[in-house]
Formats: sequence, structure tokens, C-alpha cells
Amino acid sequence: MSDEWSLNPSSPVPLHRQIYDYMKRRIMNGEWPVGTRLPTQRDLAAKFQVNRSTVVYALGELSADGLIAARVGQGTVVANNTWSLLAASPPPDWNRYVTSGLHQPNLQMIQQINRAEANPGFLRLGTGELSPELLPTDQMKQVFSGSMSSRFSLGYSEPKGSLYLREIISAYLQTKGIDASPASILIVSGALQGLQLISLGLLHAGSTIFVENPSYLNSVQVFQSAGMQVHGIPMDRQGIQTESIGRLKRQHNAALLYTIPSFHNPTGVLMPSERRGELLQTCIQERLPVIEDDVYGDLWLDDPPPPPLKAGDRQGLVLYMGSMSKTLGPGLRIGWIVGPEPVMERLADIKMQTDYGSSSLSQHAVAEWLSSGLYEQHLHRTRAALTSRRDSMLAILSKHYQELAEWSIPQGGFYIWLRLVQPVAMRLLFEQALTEGILLNPGAVYDRQDQQHLRLSYAYASLDELERGLLRLAALIRLNSCREF
Amino acid sequence: MSDEWSLNPSSPVPLHRQIYDYMKRRIMNGEWPVGTRLPTQRDLAAKFQVNRSTVVYALGELSADGLIAARVGQGTVVANNTWSLLAASPPPDWNRYVTSGLHQPNLQMIQQINRAEANPGFLRLGTGELSPELLPTDQMKQVFSGSMSSRFSLGYSEPKGSLYLREIISAYLQTKGIDASPASILIVSGALQGLQLISLGLLHAGSTIFVENPSYLNSVQVFQSAGMQVHGIPMDRQGIQTESIGRLKRQHNAALLYTIPSFHNPTGVLMPSERRGELLQTCIQERLPVIEDDVYGDLWLDDPPPPPLKAGDRQGLVLYMGSMSKTLGPGLRIGWIVGPEPVMERLADIKMQTDYGSSSLSQHAVAEWLSSGLYEQHLHRTRAALTSRRDSMLAILSKHYQELAEWSIPQGGFYIWLRLVQPVAMRLLFEQALTEGILLNPGAVYDRQDQQHLRLSYAYASLDELERGLLRLAALIRLNSCREF
Repeated sequence: MSDEWSLNPSSPVPLHRQIYDYMKRRIMNGEWPVGTRLPTQRDLAAKFQVNRSTVVYALGELSADGLIAARVGQGTVVANNTWSLLAASPPPDWNRYVTSGLHQPNLQMIQQINRAEANPGFLRLGTGELSPELLPTDQMKQVFSGSMSSRFSLGYSEPKGSLYLREIISAYLQTKGIDASPASILIVSGALQGLQLISLGLLHAGSTIFVENPSYLNSVQVFQSAGMQVHGIPMDRQGIQTESIGRLKRQHNAALLYTIPSFHNPTGVLMPSERRGELLQTCIQERLPVIEDDVYGDLWLDDPPPPPLKAGDRQGLVLYMGSMSKTLGPGLRIGWIVGPEPVMERLADIKMQTDYGSSSLSQHAVAEWLSSGLYEQHLHRTRAALTSRRDSMLAILSKHYQELAEWSIPQGGFYIWLRLVQPVAMRLLFEQALTEGILLNPGAVYDRQDQQHLRLSYAYASLDELERGLLRLAALIRLNSCREF
Repeated sequence: MSDEWSLNPSSPVPLHRQIYDYMKRRIMNGEWPVGTRLPTQRDLAAKFQVNRSTVVYALGELSADGLIAARVGQGTVVANNTWSLLAASPPPDWNRYVTSGLHQPNLQMIQQINRAEANPGFLRLGTGELSPELLPTDQMKQVFSGSMSSRFSLGYSEPKGSLYLREIISAYLQTKGIDASPASILIVSGALQGLQLISLGLLHAGSTIFVENPSYLNSVQVFQSAGMQVHGIPMDRQGIQTESIGRLKRQHNAALLYTIPSFHNPTGVLMPSERRGELLQTCIQERLPVIEDDVYGDLWLDDPPPPPLKAGDRQGLVLYMGSMSKTLGPGLRIGWIVGPEPVMERLADIKMQTDYGSSSLSQHAVAEWLSSGLYEQHLHRTRAALTSRRDSMLAILSKHYQELAEWSIPQGGFYIWLRLVQPVAMRLLFEQALTEGILLNPGAVYDRQDQQHLRLSYAYASLDELERGLLRLAALIRLNSCREF
């Protein structure tokens, strides 16, 4: 539950008493209100790094005080605090609130991944971020010192985001063949927020969104929580297959198609120019608007990718999304959507209702990076580092996974989509690896039916960790593929 | 529509041709897709600062090209672009998407206010922000240079936000009498996002939220868009009246009560200690959870306010919200919610689904300001500046509004809630003032029924502007209160 408190082993106060005091304090000041479920004895022992008997002793004391109690089907819960005993009526039942909101909770496995990612102890084999050592933390300081800061403001920005930044992004998009005025650009707090604004502002419950199968979109609940269906379209080595889109569109009355043409998440596939043309033509013919997610486009390793779909869009069919999260740093929380101006105005109005705009510090930083040439220099370094990491991972795979799995060589982005030759009880593999401190991204996160893939990322863990983790993973895969299940 | 393009008067290209070229370009690359409604001739002439005949000429050319056409009931719309003529089927109807999303658009008057606030030309008499001259822009640079930056990271932060920042906020809350562990604190991108997370995570459609009448909550659609009702409870000079809460709660089956006890928005009222105790007792008795919005609490002018409701909450009944937007700068987009840990975990999970957390640059900046003492020094200066601004506004009101209006002396925050003695056609007054470049915040923004109040703010406009604006406003009020309507 708590993420910051720990026992003091050198204190004269016995450990069970420290645990008792800590838990009592949380209960007494209402941070753990009546009805809060406590972790199991085993989890508490692991959390406090003590023997289970120490936890049992502390819980016994709390129970004797009447503060906690065992409840059938719920485990141990907070039963009272002194104030609720004194008060005429019981306190509000927060559990009822917590379970009754409109928004769906994240999938359990994704919640586990989110939590493990917040714990620096895990070896992360699939994390879709640049390693902290590849982020330009020191250079970021320069942006806020000296003469570069003259355009910086601490006030609210315009509804579509800082005009200064939008002008710079407009010029940057020109280099990709996209002709977009600043008025057609909306700054968002990362691409995920862009998707949320689209779901709130342009679609209604019951709408169907087409995605590649597998797709990043299945790992977030943004459309599903708004009551929309996500329907997967098969992929091949060139990306989404276009033949069935027309028939399926009429069948499902689809409202949008979401695609990641460059260095697809999770498969790493790069859609070649010809397929891009086919996809755009199909969507024009079917009047099917497109969300083009291009957050990996700058991270090509061998050659630049073909121009985005948006560069060939003369009808305003494509909503194009970019972001700094995969290149400059996810902590900035800056992305952009490009599309028809009336659509951007609608989304900007909703954004103003949601969070009054994105951080002006972050907007300023991105504007300075893009306009000063620092961003391009950083990309240059990042591409070199990612190329070397990719090649190392491929070498490890060639050495240890020949009989276990199949994979393609990614031309950019972060991912290798590892296909296991033998089926494996993936949930079990995930849990076993987690116990050993290794965090995996199983295919089911991106396609509920998948039991045969893992998303590997060469971007996050250190080379040493990658080697260690992949070796151990190979052993776990061997262990599990022999079992009956 | 566009917010950045302007004519070049020194170009050899005639003005009507420049307008034609500009509009054709936007249409041809899909930024103004087929169906986009153009502004009226009058608005276009004002926007481009040309004679109406120049606009008429340019529109005539576009119409002759078949690119635009007049439509009954819609004005002039984009009718075609070359590509849609070439394509076998018409482009998607974005208008249908724009009008069919789940989320309600902002009230028209609020959209007008948002737009006018993005235009630096307006004199803003009611804006709820610190004047740019009061924001510590230069000092912000220091935070990112030198030794202070060691804790800074460009990566994602933990689901509840940077632990480092939450530890510092925990200590800061202690000074207000609030005992909250970092695990009970959630960092949000401003208090508005906090409200949105509560609406998505804890409530269901049809829930009723009690608010003070009038209330800031009526100026945002955050609960209404999620299908919830907002019900106003009467106020007096000590804040929300508590007698009717129990009866109304049973009548409406209310789910939450939202209150701003310190320097209420829009009335400026400070709830005294005794009323706070009554309110908390009533809510405990009725098991009615409370959202305590304390974003103005640090901006006391004469004496510090009584302790927050949260300081007396031992049951976990109160969700307490704070923010840097009113003190250090709205552009930071950093606020926090404090409440029972299971509730914060639910909200953190939804936040991860919404935007993957708040800007790490902004979180770092707030942590450094709070922990270094810079924030307290800044508050000291800000209080002195606001006191002097408040006193000046009161002097202007005493001199020019004696027979027109009534008001109280605010003890903190930004606002004077001006009650007009004679009823006035408020919508007309708002529009007239807007035509003269003066932006007002009418009472109806905070209470749909209100026709008698204006929210004045002494925080934003310069003293010179305040004097000029208030003088002109007095004349407009006199003019309108004489009219029949």
C-alpha cells in the first residue's frame, strides 16, 4: 500500500511495535479508512522484510484494539478507528465509491506492470522507454539558463498550446512532408491524452475503432472506458492488411482506424511506402478517418521511414500524432495532434475542460530543443545507441534462442516481437519471472488472445541486464514449455 | 479560425489575393475540410483588418473556383477541394464527429471568455490568475541551474507522482495541520484534473454533487459532462449554510459536497473556524464525503485562514486539493489531492490511463520551490502585492460604484463579488464590454440564474487598466440599467 515507509532496524523499538505504530497511525488519521483491505500477511512480511511471525504479532495487537478484523471473502480489513467509534454514524464507504466509477480499471497484468515499473529493483525486458542513461538530463538544464529563456512564460498558454511551440512544430513537420499551419496543431500532454481527447470529443459510446492486431491500443483502456469497441485487423510483415478493411467497416460501422505505420508497437514492423498508399486510398474510399500514431518515426536506425500517411492527405482524413516521450523524455509529457482545424478546436475546448493545457515549462523546453538543433543532435546520438543495443540483443537472441523462438530485425523504434516456437503458459511465465525480479511484457497485453509472443525492448535495460535477463528468460521458457498444462 | 496568420501590407500582392491564397491553401491541404464553416464576412474583415469589400472579393474568387458555397442555415462552408473532386467518394463528415462526442462543449460564454483570454489585447477585469508581472519567471530559471537539479529526472514518475515531491508536500501540509503520508498524496496536473479523476473514478452518472451557490464548479463541465448533477446550497457571509445539507442529501442522494472554505471562488468569502466545524460535523453525520478545494489558502492578506477541514478529519472523509496555479504559476500545471490511500490508488490508476502522469519538469520545479524556501519568500511578496491591489480596487469602487453596487472586503484570494443594485441585461453588458475590449466574468458563469453579480479580480490587470476598465464599466452599467428590457 504505502510506498515510502520502512522499518528502522537500528531503533530500540521492536520491529513488531514499529509495524503496529505505523499501521495504527495510518488508520487513526483516516488514510486507511474503515473498510480498507490490508495486504496478506505474506505480502506485508515481504514489504517490511521481516519474518511472517513479526507481522502476525503486530496484526494481533491491532485486532485486539478493535482496529482491524478478518472478513469472509475480503481478508483483513480496517474495522474501526477511535473516531468512528465515537461518531454517531459510520464513516462513508469509500469502497463503494472506488468500485463504482465510470472508468474501467487497468487490466490486472497492466496494473502489475505499472507497479513493477515504479520499483527500481526490477530488470525490465520489455519497457517502451529510453534508458535513463540515454535521456539528456544534463542538457535539459541549459534550456532554462541564459538567453534561451526569453520566450518562457509561467502563465496559461492558448487553448491549442503555446503558439511559439506550434510554429516550431509546424516547421519541423514540414521536414516530414506535412504541411500544417500552427492553427491545425494541438499540443497535448503526451499521445495518450490525444487519444483520450479524441474518444471524448469525436466519438460516441458503441463506436468501433479498427487497430492493427496486435496493438498498443489494447494495452490502454482509453477507448474501452468510453464504451467503444476495439477491433483488430490482421497484419503481415508490411503492416496492417488493407483488403478486408472495406468489408469490415460496413460490418462494424467503424468510426476510425488507428495505425502505427513506423516501427509499430509491439511488433516493430515498418509499413513500406506502397502499403501506406494502399491504406490511405482504402480509407479515402471508405470515408474512414485515420489516427496515425508516429511517436517512433524519428527513431529510425538504418534509413528514414517513408513519409507519413498525413503527408499524402489532402482531405483532412488523417489525425496525425507525434510526441517527445520516446525521444527526448517521457517525463516532459508533450505531444501534438495535427488535423482539420475545426476538429482541433473541438479537442482544444475539451482539453481546456480537462487540465487547462500542458505544462508551460515542458512546452518551452520542447520548443527550445526543436528550434536550436539540440533535438536533431540528440536524435543522432540516440540512433547510434539504439542501433548498438539492437545489434547486441540480436546477437544474444541468435546465441540462446535459436530453437526457442523466431523474430524479425527491427529497422527502428524499440521492439523485437519474439514468437515462441512452443506454446507456453504465459501467465505463469510472467509470474515466475516477476518473482525473480524480471518484468516481462507478454503478448496478451497487446492482443488478449495471444499466448505465443513477448514484446522485448532493447531501449531500456542496460546491456548487462539484457544479457542476464534474456539468459534467465530462456531457461524459464524451456522449463515451462516442457510442462503439461 | 486561424490564430497566427496575418496579411502583409507591404507586399506587391493585392490584399484580396493574399486572402484568397491563404484560404485556398488551408482548404487544399485539408486543414479546412469540406463542410468547414467560414467566419462571417464581418468577422473575416475584422480578423484581417481590411474593408469588407476586400473580403467579399476574395470569397467571390473562392466561390467561382467551386471551393466554397453558401448553405442555408450554415452560412458559407467549404464545398470542395480539388482532391475531393477527384476522389470517387466524398471525404468524411468531420462535423458529424465534432458534434457527436460524449463530452459537452463549454458554455458559449465560457468559450468566449477562453478565447478572449488567449488574446493579449483584452482588458481583463475578472481573470482568476496572478498578473504576469507577479509570476516569478526569472527565478524559475535558477531552479534548473546549478546544484539544485540533482533530483531531476526526465523519465516517467511513479503512478502517484514523484515521491520526492510527495515527501515535500507532506511536510508542507504538516504546517497546515494536515497529517498525510506521501502514499496518501496524488500529484495531478492542476486541481481541475483532480476533479476529473474524481468524476471518472469515484462517481457514476446520475450522482449529485453539492456545491456552494454560486460556485466555480458551475464554470467547468467536469461533472456535468460525466452525467452528474450539480446542486447549489445557499451561502451567507460565513460560507455554505449547513442546516439544509442533511435534508437535501436524503432528498437528492448526494454523493459528494464540494467546498472552497478559504477565499471562495467567486465570492471571496472566508469560512470561519466555527462554520468549518459545523460543516465537518454535518458531513460526518450524513456520511457525505467532502472535496475541500484549498487552492487560494496560501493567499491570505490580513491573517492566515483557520486550519482546513482536512486538519480535523480523522475518518478519511475529506479529499483535500491544493495547487500551485494560483500562487507560483498556472503554466506549471501542478496540484495535489490528499485522501484515503485506497482512493488515491484508484485515482492514480486512472491518471496513468489518462496522461501517464504530470510533467517531471514541473514536478521538479515545485519540489525545489517548496523545499528551498523560495516559495514562502514568493508568497510574502505576492501577499504584499495583492494587498495593495485589493486596496486600490476598493478605493476605485468606493469612489465610482457607491450608488451602483455593493461588495464586501475580501480577506484573501483574488475576488470581489460585485452585486449590482439595479438589475441589468447581463448578456448585453458582457457583449458591449467585449466590443470595447473589456472582458467581464458575469455571475451567470458561476450560477446560471444570476443576473446581478460580476466577479472582479484585483490579481490580473494592471492598476492602470483596473481603473480605466472599472470607470468604463460603471458607465456601461449606468447605460444598461436605464434601459427597458
